[in-house]
Amino acid sequence: MSNKYVYLFNEGSKEMKELLGGKGANLAEMTLVGLPVPPGFTISTKACNDYYLHGKSLTSEMEQQIDEALKTLENTTGKRLGGEEYPLLVSVRSGSVISMPGMMDTVLTLGLNDTTVDVIAHLTDNPRFAYDSYRRFIQMFSDVVLGLEHYLFEQVIDERKKDNQVYEDTELTAEDWKAVVEEYKKIVLSKTKKPFPQEPKKQLEMAIRAVFDSWNNQRAIVYRKINKIPDHLGTAVNIQMMVFGNMGDDSGTGVAFTRNPSTGEAALYGEYLMNAQGEDVVAGIRTPKSIDTLKNVNTEVFQQFLAITKQLEQHYKDMQDIEFTIEKGKLYFLQTRTGKRTAQSAVKIAVDLHREEVIDRDTALLRVDPDQLNQLLHRQIDTTVDFHVLAKGLPASPGAASGYIVFDANDAEKKHLDGDKVILVRPETTPEDIHGIVAAEGILTSRGGMTSHAAVVARGMGKACITGCEALKIDLKKKEIYLENGSLLKEGDTISIDGSTGNVMLGEVKLIDPELSEEFQVLLEWADEVREIGVRANADTPEDAAKSREFGATGIGLCRTEHMFMAADRVPTVQEMILAENNEERETALAKLLPMQQGDFKGILKAMAGYPVTIRLLDPPLHEFLPNVEDLIVELTKMKVEDASIQEIREKEKLLRKIRNLSEFNPMLGHRGCRLGITFPEIYAMQAEAIFNATIELAEEGIEVEPEIMIPLVGHVNELKLMKDLVIQIAENVKERTNRDFNYTVGTMIEVPRAALTADEIAEHAEFFSFGTNDLTQTTFGFSRDDAEGKFLQYYLDHKILSDNPFVTIDQDGVGKLIKMGTELGRKTKPELKVGICGEHGGEKHSIEFVYKAGLNYVSCSPFRVPIAILAAAQATVNNKGQSL
Amino acid sequence: MSNKYVYLFNEGSKEMKELLGGKGANLAEMTLVGLPVPPGFTISTKACNDYYLHGKSLTSEMEQQIDEALKTLENTTGKRLGGEEYPLLVSVRSGSVISMPGMMDTVLTLGLNDTTVDVIAHLTDNPRFAYDSYRRFIQMFSDVVLGLEHYLFEQVIDERKKDNQVYEDTELTAEDWKAVVEEYKKIVLSKTKKPFPQEPKKQLEMAIRAVFDSWNNQRAIVYRKINKIPDHLGTAVNIQMMVFGNMGDDSGTGVAFTRNPSTGEAALYGEYLMNAQGEDVVAGIRTPKSIDTLKNVNTEVFQQFLAITKQLEQHYKDMQDIEFTIEKGKLYFLQTRTGKRTAQSAVKIAVDLHREEVIDRDTALLRVDPDQLNQLLHRQIDTTVDFHVLAKGLPASPGAASGYIVFDANDAEKKHLDGDKVILVRPETTPEDIHGIVAAEGILTSRGGMTSHAAVVARGMGKACITGCEALKIDLKKKEIYLENGSLLKEGDTISIDGSTGNVMLGEVKLIDPELSEEFQVLLEWADEVREIGVRANADTPEDAAKSREFGATGIGLCRTEHMFMAADRVPTVQEMILAENNEERETALAKLLPMQQGDFKGILKAMAGYPVTIRLLDPPLHEFLPNVEDLIVELTKMKVEDASIQEIREKEKLLRKIRNLSEFNPMLGHRGCRLGITFPEIYAMQAEAIFNATIELAEEGIEVEPEIMIPLVGHVNELKLMKDLVIQIAENVKERTNRDFNYTVGTMIEVPRAALTADEIAEHAEFFSFGTNDLTQTTFGFSRDDAEGKFLQYYLDHKILSDNPFVTIDQDGVGKLIKMGTELGRKTKPELKVGICGEHGGEKHSIEFVYKAGLNYVSCSPFRVPIAILAAAQATVNNKGQSL
Repeated sequence: MSNKYVYLFNEGSKEMKELLGGKGANLAEMTLVGLPVPPGFTISTKACNDYYLHGKSLTSEMEQQIDEALKTLENTTGKRLGGEEYPLLVSVRSGSVISMPGMMDTVLTLGLNDTTVDVIAHLTDNPRFAYDSYRRFIQMFSDVVLGLEHYLFEQVIDERKKDNQVYEDTELTAEDWKAVVEEYKKIVLSKTKKPFPQEPKKQLEMAIRAVFDSWNNQRAIVYRKINKIPDHLGTAVNIQMMVFGNMGDDSGTGVAFTRNPSTGEAALYGEYLMNAQGEDVVAGIRTPKSIDTLKNVNTEVFQQFLAITKQLEQHYKDMQDIEFTIEKGKLYFLQTRTGKRTAQSAVKIAVDLHREEVIDRDTALLRVDPDQLNQLLHRQIDTTVDFHVLAKGLPASPGAASGYIVFDANDAEKKHLDGDKVILVRPETTPEDIHGIVAAEGILTSRGGMTSHAAVVARGMGKACITGCEALKIDLKKKEIYLENGSLLKEGDTISIDGSTGNVMLGEVKLIDPELSEEFQVLLEWADEVREIGVRANADTPEDAAKSREFGATGIGLCRTEHMFMAADRVPTVQEMILAENNEERETALAKLLPMQQGDFKGILKAMAGYPVTIRLLDPPLHEFLPNVEDLIVELTKMKVEDASIQEIREKEKLLRKIRNLSEFNPMLGHRGCRLGITFPEIYAMQAEAIFNATIELAEEGIEVEPEIMIPLVGHVNELKLMKDLVIQIAENVKERTNRDFNYTVGTMIEVPRAALTADEIAEHAEFFSFGTNDLTQTTFGFSRDDAEGKFLQYYLDHKILSDNPFVTIDQDGVGKLIKMGTELGRKTKPELKVGICGEHGGEKHSIEFVYKAGLNYVSCSPFRVPIAILAAAQATVNNKGQSL
Repeated sequence: MSNKYVYLFNEGSKEMKELLGGKGANLAEMTLVGLPVPPGFTISTKACNDYYLHGKSLTSEMEQQIDEALKTLENTTGKRLGGEEYPLLVSVRSGSVISMPGMMDTVLTLGLNDTTVDVIAHLTDNPRFAYDSYRRFIQMFSDVVLGLEHYLFEQVIDERKKDNQVYEDTELTAEDWKAVVEEYKKIVLSKTKKPFPQEPKKQLEMAIRAVFDSWNNQRAIVYRKINKIPDHLGTAVNIQMMVFGNMGDDSGTGVAFTRNPSTGEAALYGEYLMNAQGEDVVAGIRTPKSIDTLKNVNTEVFQQFLAITKQLEQHYKDMQDIEFTIEKGKLYFLQTRTGKRTAQSAVKIAVDLHREEVIDRDTALLRVDPDQLNQLLHRQIDTTVDFHVLAKGLPASPGAASGYIVFDANDAEKKHLDGDKVILVRPETTPEDIHGIVAAEGILTSRGGMTSHAAVVARGMGKACITGCEALKIDLKKKEIYLENGSLLKEGDTISIDGSTGNVMLGEVKLIDPELSEEFQVLLEWADEVREIGVRANADTPEDAAKSREFGATGIGLCRTEHMFMAADRVPTVQEMILAENNEERETALAKLLPMQQGDFKGILKAMAGYPVTIRLLDPPLHEFLPNVEDLIVELTKMKVEDASIQEIREKEKLLRKIRNLSEFNPMLGHRGCRLGITFPEIYAMQAEAIFNATIELAEEGIEVEPEIMIPLVGHVNELKLMKDLVIQIAENVKERTNRDFNYTVGTMIEVPRAALTADEIAEHAEFFSFGTNDLTQTTFGFSRDDAEGKFLQYYLDHKILSDNPFVTIDQDGVGKLIKMGTELGRKTKPELKVGICGEHGGEKHSIEFVYKAGLNYVSCSPFRVPIAILAAAQATVNNKGQSL
């Protein structure tokens, strides 16, 4: 046998995940550990790939191995597929290497047909259960395998309930289900022109194909794209003996987490329903009960369950997400996997597990995805301010959000693309709604529990989510929500939701800064001890400086002085400076700006005292500070048509002419950065003087600071040399005037390719380099970010021309190559050269790992990303030690 | 003695140019060869540099060596400086390593004082000459050494002539000059508060210092900048016994070229004046006589002169520019140097000298500066069309030009910066006018000969120039020109000049293509045989293709398809395509464009049949084809103010909205190049189809062509891959539809840094690379050319932040590094990869040499630069063989 495609559960282990998929490997592992797992076998991911290789067909080798495994299963269970004595019923489930919850297809109770249904009815002495199972099976098989729409079948049940004047499925009898089955079979015959397949082996083969096919259904492809899961992994198929949670009141089914996935609390957490199938819990159709109450239903089972979950957590060394079924009082484990969790929970679980000595510190650091921390750092609803709570649901995913109500995933996406913030409101969500969840600020559902689709997906994405908010009566057709209190919400109304409390509020609600948990602080302390590169903040105000310091930044990597120029009260003076007719006029305006800048710098240097502060001299083109040309044209045209005075028109024309003179074809590549400093040295001179004056004022207050002055947009060593000489000259002047000494350094941004290519020359005159990766990405790709993101970048990402947005994650092959080259060349000239990055990439985990490996000294990012960067920096160290667990 | 600063003429040779300067080395060489050179010595360039090193002072070592050399000179000549029996008079001249004609200072007849003037008067029996010399010496010494203005002294002569009622200097008597001398001495005393120095050794020392100082006068610095002469070379000082061309009618002075510097004709060419000093010839104050007429004046001297010039040309193996003086019938050679020449002359002389077996072919190829060829390739005045000749002057520098009249170098520069074309009209030019000559299209002077300042400088720059146009009476104050025929020209009037005929014409005159000389063709043939890289043309029309083929291009390296889109009759269809509401509308418009493009491609491929043609698919952003936003805003505002119909306003607003949607912040980095092809594949598909259809139509006519399809602006291999797949798909479709086969290749522009950095990946899918050095320079520097050139690039060049304009000469350290890297990486993947460049640098000699050394296969440039590129390519080969002569 050249290929082994099929593995019995007792042939595998958790190490075989790549081949058996997550679910298959876990079932094998659980079997190995000795858990009560219903027996079965796994068709490998290799079979899936070979299935596609052979033009979507099962090879005879596969078919033969499936037959053999089935025979073994039949022997083990003493049941036969389609057997008239003891019929074997199986589940057929997908199971990919990386979990994709709800994305692919599953068929349950396979093996039922017109004959076996009666055998089961007889064996269980429960015809109602048998026919209910059979109708469920036909419905699911029709949906998943035959591609018939769900509603066709739901209509049949609705009509029958109407006829019987009952409201719940549970009120329907065995005879009802038997009749439903007949109707279902008619639907299948009418829609597919073939009778519902009665041969169980045929059913099995069709189901296996359907699972393989589901690897490439639309929602799975979207999910993989969002979660960056490679397309070539494929899915395994798990065939497992069915056990039934719906065999009466001594049966049940549920899901549980070994710790709280929302808070991280070290206590069993979960939900179950008695006399129900697993899908009833997950789909959120019935609202389930808390796992704690199980002990009142069946103490023995509950104790057994508790003991096994503890064993599982010790075995897997992480919080587990478990599916279980109780069949006539016997407990079965259907699945266990590492549980998804909120950021808060991830932090607490990681810290707790290390404290419990289950994992080492490095592993604890790796357990939290830095991106997740974002949730904890973003603002939450200010509970000290009054707000009107409309309704309350389950706190399914923490964080707060406000937005317009939309009722449809497509609308959510459309509005989002228009720049609107929306809250997606649905009775419940399904995998088809993924794109709407991506687009929305938050999700609100009227049905479903904490483990419903909406809840799981939202937590994974770090979006605010409230589920099971039953007070909302949603009319999808009218696009309205009726509240219990009689009020009415319409599409377009603004609401706020708080996923941490479950509160739904009218209008936009005030948000406040989050408080960081003790575990969060501990995790950051550990990260600080481990990380080998510095984390600074990009901060332009004393407030931002203080905030980033609080978050753990040990310096400012980028203080943008233009933001200070843009303050409304300064713009007139800045315009005066720009529109100056001569040097004298310009110097007069600059003299007015000097004390303002001096105050700015003093505040920032003081807030960051003890740590380095890199101040970038003026960077943007001057026309950014001037009125808009198009507005002026409109005004001028009006004046002309309306016969304004020649004098007024002349004045306006003069202003327009000046602005036009300053306007540029490609401002990003124009007269900005050091090019301004070179052609208008008086501007940089003023800024340098303001910095040095502030330094001296602070020294007089007993605060020693050492500013790092950064020259932007240098492409040729001579540019830096000239500007450095100017700064030195100003420093000497200030020293002489004040008769005081102070320290400072001068360095440069590396943000055009030429700077990186000639970094050896540039380093001769630079005491530090800071890679401005935003501009460096723009120039290296030849992408204007403003234009690319609106015009073609999304297309590039959707069509996988680029795997990542290079403005989010450093493009290692291109931009990264320049960063490495620039660093190496710079250090060749000056081995002690301090090198950092200060683009937006400075707060992104993949970029931080790259920067660490490239040997840079620090990253600098926005204040709210500082903790993320600290954790990512620590992970970079750990990952590159190869010490993960 | 640790430093030798001073060399007697018989101690040196032409190999010592670096130390002795061009003039000093030549004087030494001439002395060595045995020519009649007045004896003297040279103070070396090293002395000049040490002079500056010692804070502009002559060291005692220098002074001592000067004294010794002077003593030797006195012994050789039997005369003594300041001697009362036989006074030695000397010239003190600068002499830099690279000739800088007229840029630095010279003092003649040094050694005259109140005593020696009388000795000379007595010895020559010519008091008029003695006092004339003395007054010239005082005037020159005062100008050069004491810094007194020329006009102070000219006034004295003018008044004396007025008093005597004479018009020419020659009409003044010895007594007049004696009186002038007294006046001159008074001026010196009054202006400098010191008497004119009477001690000849003091005079000498002061003059030497003045020459050293003149190395850094303003005009010398400007000249070095324009001609790229390094500042550190320094100048030597040549001290030489004076001989006199103004000792009566048996004396004279002149300049001559061993061949015609204008046409290259192999015949002695020059001018002289009897009873005159050299400066009278060069300064153009008196109009001199042709050298041929010298044989009538003194046959013996003329024969001797002829023989020696032939000897000199053989010795130096190049056309010589000679200064000579006849002193009382005895011939002296004062200077010989390689003569400046026009392009036409350079070509003819190089070819002739090789045919005469004086130089080898490689040397001949190096003798012509490729830049100079520009003159020969640019258009000239169409003599078949009537034009009105206002006046006729000397044809001083060939080529034709039109422009506004300006009378002042500063005005010329100002107007030029405003974008106006100007003709600089002056009575005569001086080195102070250099910046005006640079700025002007052409130069017209009313005085001076073919060797006057204006003529020499204009020829060097390849500018049209007419000198000695005495029919023009120029009033510099009124800014008017009176013509002999009574008409009047004013500043701002347009004239045309033809430097090849000497014709001055009113208005702008029709220009025609030049005819290329036989020698030019021969030189290009030689270059073709020698060069190792290909020369292609950037051509977008069949006419340009034919023209470039005529000029020697062996292929098209860049055919820009957007130029075809911009034809006035196509713009409506192109706009239709761009503004299409949906794919259908777009395809309809494209279907209209297809036959047009097909015709374009057929014409070009046919014109270049037998050679490769690289066709670049659409590159510029689509909004370039649409109406201007500002114009639309003006229209719309008017419509609103004037109450146009809502319907009309809506339509206009809709158009404006669409254009706005397409408009970009940085179009250079926006939605263009392959980004267009990727998002609108139907556009590239149409273009590819047009190319393949044209290929097949030509094949049906028996013309086999193999188009090279070039994908622009690729930054990531996936972009190329996608577009290549599209082109291949179209090719397959066309092949199937027509049932015909054809060959083609697909390659890419490398014009963003990322493409060069990842060239190894890109080369997997490219059959050729073409470096688009214009865009690559923009992105590597982060310079938008349109903005940089108007805003700061000139400042950068003026202040030597950049040594060259990177859009003219490839920036080797930055952009060049990417070109090398891209080529190496590309060839690592695909050793046979064809690589070229197609930016404007493809026609620039330094860039071509760089490209040759970087191992590229070809350059591509504008049709009129093809011959320049061919010659530069040959020179690159020769230079890198190290076989120069």
